[in-house]
Amino acid sequence: MADTGITPRERDYSQWYLDVIAQGDLADYSPVKGCMVIRPHGYAVWDTMRNELDARFRATGHVNAYFPLFIPVSFLSKEAEHVEGFAKECAVVTHHRLRASAQGGVEPDPTSKLEEPLVVRPTSETIIWHMYGKWIQSHRDLPILINQWANVVRWEMKTRLFLRTTEFLWQEGHTAHATAEEAVAETKQMLDVYADFAEKVLAVPVVRGVKSASERFAGAVDTYCIEAMMQNGWALQAGTSHFLGQNFAKAFDVSFQTEAGSRDFVWATSWGVSTRLVGAVIMSHSDDTGLVLPPSLAPIQVVVTPIWRGEAEKATVLAFAERVDKLLCGQVRVKLDARDSMKPGAKYFEWERKGVPLRLEIGPRDVAQNSVFAAPRTGGGKFAIPVDEQLLAVVKAKLDEIQALLYNRAAERLAARTVSVSSYDELKARLEEGLFFRVNWCDDAANEARIKEETKATIRCYPLDGQSPDGPCFYSGRPATHVAIFARAY
Amino acid sequence: MADTGITPRERDYSQWYLDVIAQGDLADYSPVKGCMVIRPHGYAVWDTMRNELDARFRATGHVNAYFPLFIPVSFLSKEAEHVEGFAKECAVVTHHRLRASAQGGVEPDPTSKLEEPLVVRPTSETIIWHMYGKWIQSHRDLPILINQWANVVRWEMKTRLFLRTTEFLWQEGHTAHATAEEAVAETKQMLDVYADFAEKVLAVPVVRGVKSASERFAGAVDTYCIEAMMQNGWALQAGTSHFLGQNFAKAFDVSFQTEAGSRDFVWATSWGVSTRLVGAVIMSHSDDTGLVLPPSLAPIQVVVTPIWRGEAEKATVLAFAERVDKLLCGQVRVKLDARDSMKPGAKYFEWERKGVPLRLEIGPRDVAQNSVFAAPRTGGGKFAIPVDEQLLAVVKAKLDEIQALLYNRAAERLAARTVSVSSYDELKARLEEGLFFRVNWCDDAANEARIKEETKATIRCYPLDGQSPDGPCFYSGRPATHVAIFARAY
Repeated sequence: MADTGITPRERDYSQWYLDVIAQGDLADYSPVKGCMVIRPHGYAVWDTMRNELDARFRATGHVNAYFPLFIPVSFLSKEAEHVEGFAKECAVVTHHRLRASAQGGVEPDPTSKLEEPLVVRPTSETIIWHMYGKWIQSHRDLPILINQWANVVRWEMKTRLFLRTTEFLWQEGHTAHATAEEAVAETKQMLDVYADFAEKVLAVPVVRGVKSASERFAGAVDTYCIEAMMQNGWALQAGTSHFLGQNFAKAFDVSFQTEAGSRDFVWATSWGVSTRLVGAVIMSHSDDTGLVLPPSLAPIQVVVTPIWRGEAEKATVLAFAERVDKLLCGQVRVKLDARDSMKPGAKYFEWERKGVPLRLEIGPRDVAQNSVFAAPRTGGGKFAIPVDEQLLAVVKAKLDEIQALLYNRAAERLAARTVSVSSYDELKARLEEGLFFRVNWCDDAANEARIKEETKATIRCYPLDGQSPDGPCFYSGRPATHVAIFARAY
Repeated sequence: MADTGITPRERDYSQWYLDVIAQGDLADYSPVKGCMVIRPHGYAVWDTMRNELDARFRATGHVNAYFPLFIPVSFLSKEAEHVEGFAKECAVVTHHRLRASAQGGVEPDPTSKLEEPLVVRPTSETIIWHMYGKWIQSHRDLPILINQWANVVRWEMKTRLFLRTTEFLWQEGHTAHATAEEAVAETKQMLDVYADFAEKVLAVPVVRGVKSASERFAGAVDTYCIEAMMQNGWALQAGTSHFLGQNFAKAFDVSFQTEAGSRDFVWATSWGVSTRLVGAVIMSHSDDTGLVLPPSLAPIQVVVTPIWRGEAEKATVLAFAERVDKLLCGQVRVKLDARDSMKPGAKYFEWERKGVPLRLEIGPRDVAQNSVFAAPRTGGGKFAIPVDEQLLAVVKAKLDEIQALLYNRAAERLAARTVSVSSYDELKARLEEGLFFRVNWCDDAANEARIKEETKATIRCYPLDGQSPDGPCFYSGRPATHVAIFARAY
């Protein structure tokens, strides 16, 4: 621990997580409570997520737009459930000017008090449906398939870098449809987009499911979700897709003329993922040496580290390293680390902590043998790769292998730590093992709340795997209505 | 005007601008005073700007990061001039919770009042330099070359879509250096990046210059800028790059150990461009038919519009149009508009208003002749292009020609409407012509303020073209210290 600055997972999982972030230069605390600074390496990870998701959104017919940061407080109260969920902890703007204070600093100028306070958006359904009301008159204006990349603010009392912060970055899709069927299909499609992205890019296997009523988005008819399992067996909600029915259309009076000539309220969906996905990736793959990034997500997939002593060696080794760099450049995300000021060991250490999947070491002996010495971040021993026309293919194959390895490890964990239990006592007895508990469940919000209070385990979802209950409710003994997954969650 | 929904420029230039935005589906007013909604087409234009700029920032060694939206009010007062410039009109967060009000709505909960109010960032120097203080100890930590893409808020009393809005999107670069020389070089480099981007991508020629003391960024030692000329001859500041000296390092106590072992304060720059550039593009190139976009910036560079009557024609024409689409796709940004529901004329009208540089019409006769009928948005007559292996090259050449045409038109305007005047009376007499007035000037803030009050013309910049004053000050008759450009500005 003194060596790496990283607390081993076994000793303190929470501290390990924070150490991985600090040592990987991913994020830092800011002077504003609950708000984080996303450092360049962390931002590059988010940027890759953004690019990958954005391409998937475009491929499914969506376009980007931008709506205001501020929402009049009266908007929040228009949708009855929404106000319950989102009007509570949010940043409220009440003044628009500062003035010099008697103490020599500045303070809000009382003469600049706003007539109606503004809320910094915790999510944008209300302002967007206000605008949709201006834009939608006829079925010809539908569907609207808009996504927004934005920052949002939810005032959190207990925060954790990436996983729960007062301000976070996210995307929020908001679509408007002529029929319920189309809106439901959109909701499910976006869930599939998220699941595919999580599994292919993040190498994080997920359970697709539906939320119970008490875990549902405030204002939704149905909330679909993907749930991932972290290394300690806790769940992390990695994305949600909501079928909003006509709730927001009614609240904001958005109706349209149907093809048949009648009027109907518009059907809605919304869906989002956020910078908490960076936390999910960290907790899925990293080890006691620090961050591990799946190649599809890594801003730098391959780092080339030349090693030399003296100027003569330097010239030869650097020229060879530049040749290697050129062979890979544009095909994989490669970085040549030619810094003079650091010893090789320090460089290795830095790139390991930053999670670079593959390191190619080049010393004078490698130059002589016309090869590089490859060290995968996931271990398994170093090996030589000849530097010829096959180099790119070998490197790509190794990156694919690392990607598959990380996914498979996580999938095996998910499978091994998902257990069926048939009694509440069994769940309680095994709670500390860090498991997904699959149970037969009779939908009952009061029982759900009681279990949450006693165990802190919540219904993560009703899985969409087509399985039906095969016995009575594990808690109440009543006929089961669902298969549910209970787990502790971030 | 009834036809297009666009007021002619001659009749009302301001209304024309707003009509172009509305008819081009670029932006809309929001229910929050001064805040706009950027609609998908407008956002796509901004996104292209973002991608082009981001690539240029990376190529010059910069990385992206993200800093918090909220700034403690006390931070603003740390830099003496900065507080004067930015603490005035800004959104102030004073509470973090709402509660049900007696009237049935919601209101700020008095028990949630923040100990220290937070400002929604008007610019991020203060919070970033606070963080740099944590990150910088030694010369080995320098330079830091960080850029941020973000939203910022400046409470504006008089707003205009894109050009001046309370919330806007921008990028802000913030760099830290060991020497003044390096920081000045960075400041100038980023000005060149902006100028190159404006001229090559936006097709907007700019004057590079330095601001007078009264137009300088609050907290800067020197503000460099690029100034563009709109079609009415008014100036628009299109980008700024600030040399901040050691002002922020001193305010936030950010010093470092030099290579020689002594301690010195860090040298800083900051630089930014915003969504107002979308306004600059609109005002530079558009006409009385609506938006005109330069091809390098257009989200859709080429629209293919098949024209048919009846199902038999439809099959043939569509198949041919798809072939054309495939020949161009991936090489230029092309869209095939195969909508069944609209007549050709309505489609032409829509794409013209959206500023698509080149339209390729395809009717049965074109199919028979194996050609498309090309209509450039900039006019000059339609012409046929054979559909063969040369199509892509011809289309690309036409796009290049349109790009050059737009730039040249704007450059000719800038040259023709930049005049040298040797007396204040002459300036006043010609004020309404819409001109850049080049004058010999003796630096004097009081005289500058007087001219601004009397004519609304301001010093846009002292141009960096190497010219020296060739006579006494046009206003005071005193020996001139600078060549200055005065103009009305947005």
